Amino acid sequence: MASLKVPEPVPSPTLDSERLRKAFQGLGTDEKELILVLGHRNSKQRKEIRETYQQLYKESLIDRLYSELSGDFRNAIILWTQDPAERDAKLANVALKARRKGIKQLQVLVEIACASNPNHLVAVRQAYCSLFGCSLEEDIVASVPQPLRKLLLGLVSSYRYDKVAISLEVAKSEATKIHEAINTKKLDDDHIIWILSTRNLFQLRETFASYKHLYGISLEQGIKNCGKGDLESLLTVVVWCIGSPEKHFAKVVRDSILGFGTDEDSLNRAIVTRAEIDLLKARFEYANMYKSSLDDDVIGDTSGDYRDFLMTLLGKGPKGF
Amino acid sequence: MASLKVPEPVPSPTLDSERLRKAFQGLGTDEKELILVLGHRNSKQRKEIRETYQQLYKESLIDRLYSELSGDFRNAIILWTQDPAERDAKLANVALKARRKGIKQLQVLVEIACASNPNHLVAVRQAYCSLFGCSLEEDIVASVPQPLRKLLLGLVSSYRYDKVAISLEVAKSEATKIHEAINTKKLDDDHIIWILSTRNLFQLRETFASYKHLYGISLEQGIKNCGKGDLESLLTVVVWCIGSPEKHFAKVVRDSILGFGTDEDSLNRAIVTRAEIDLLKARFEYANMYKSSLDDDVIGDTSGDYRDFLMTLLGKGPKGF
Repeated sequence: MASLKVPEPVPSPTLDSERLRKAFQGLGTDEKELILVLGHRNSKQRKEIRETYQQLYKESLIDRLYSELSGDFRNAIILWTQDPAERDAKLANVALKARRKGIKQLQVLVEIACASNPNHLVAVRQAYCSLFGCSLEEDIVASVPQPLRKLLLGLVSSYRYDKVAISLEVAKSEATKIHEAINTKKLDDDHIIWILSTRNLFQLRETFASYKHLYGISLEQGIKNCGKGDLESLLTVVVWCIGSPEKHFAKVVRDSILGFGTDEDSLNRAIVTRAEIDLLKARFEYANMYKSSLDDDVIGDTSGDYRDFLMTLLGKGPKGF
Repeated sequence: MASLKVPEPVPSPTLDSERLRKAFQGLGTDEKELILVLGHRNSKQRKEIRETYQQLYKESLIDRLYSELSGDFRNAIILWTQDPAERDAKLANVALKARRKGIKQLQVLVEIACASNPNHLVAVRQAYCSLFGCSLEEDIVASVPQPLRKLLLGLVSSYRYDKVAISLEVAKSEATKIHEAINTKKLDDDHIIWILSTRNLFQLRETFASYKHLYGISLEQGIKNCGKGDLESLLTVVVWCIGSPEKHFAKVVRDSILGFGTDEDSLNRAIVTRAEIDLLKARFEYANMYKSSLDDDVIGDTSGDYRDFLMTLLGKGPKGF
């Protein structure tokens, strides 16, 4: 369930481009107007706006946003306005080029591979090649140590069947295989990687349920019992992103807010990438998991146009379109 | 270099559909006319013909071809007329469902993964999901034994960078890694699979050249020295399909013709799948490798409309379009 609110009928891309152009001109930028337009358009509409704006004014909308704005608001609204495949390719590249590549960085790749549809994942791989002159997989091999490398390579290379096709027999037999791997502490076993990177998401959810049914604990708990290394942590993210991405993204928002200061990059990523997918569900899970309101917590940690923009994507922005 | 010959200007899909329809009607089918039309159209034009024919006559062109024709000619012309991604998905499925899955069957997967462009490979994976209700990778895991499984999974999951980007340093270092794997007889080492399934084809050709330069023998010879098992055989196909697909397909044609009887399935596959890509080169390599004419050998092993059709795809069919 998306949190994004789009007006009905939606204005033409030409009208939207004119509003944006006007917001850029004059003394200072009219940030409120940028939020009112861009914060209420879905990815197809934003694509049309980018193209129309370019045609009308012979400049890139993204470049203009970059030169007009600054700080977290700029980062968030550019992340939102970009082509989603290019956006994710860039997020993946930032993760892989980070000096420290912990779970916080590498989970971005898991999100792209496990919490989006197979055609989007392929589009990200295409965009990665175009933007960075090599395959996403080459950069994973070059920069991620084993055994995480093998797991991530399998996941980002997947092209899963995207309809519901569940076999209870497969669920049981593969839950058993996963249990054996956990028992023998061989979480990087080829069979585990194959199960997680070739099966469709519905089958995998059934397999996870079967694991719980057979062994009396959740798969997350099973993995935790195995150890506290990076592989265990990353596998837990995989299980969440496959099993209930809304819980994972609720946690990303929570982690970005907790402690001193805010991790705006993670907060932006969670809200921008999920506003058109399942951010309403993530809000619900957030309340469930943390006995706190996601909206209130975001409001408490942000301010000004940045706050208004995030709240708009959360479906709670300033009134009017 | 394609062998296919297309008339200039090309007739409209409506005109072509009308000619095909007429060829189906009356006493007996006019096979010559089917060859003249379909055997001289590229994949984009055949797609338009399929769509236009369906619209005009409310029947599938493929179904009509199936009901009008028979034998090897039918198989060849249907293989040619189908959507290339669906065709390859079906070929992959036949290979995976074969009772005996030797190199002859599994090399079909290597051809699709290593001798076509990355977008075609993705389209094949999409078509496989649509046609067979599961991912291509799931069927590989279910039906191919180790260590071939791991190699094939890596290759079919690849999305290679498709422009020329070569590093001599990478070529040397990865040639050395391959040499180590050959020396220790660990050809299914993860590093080898990663090299072969993540690097772009231009880089891999440089790496193969580097291997020859460093160790004085070709990589094929190195692999052969390692043993005569299935993995060695399949890896040799991989090296050929990456290094010089035209040689590989010349060999497929040769193998299909040699000995008693003809292996029409392999002959059809080689000619149909490469007529728009590199069949002229394959003909040249065939002459080079076997001191014999590919055209003459195909003519010697086939007859009638079947022969005329294959020769048309080879650019040597009956005169006229």
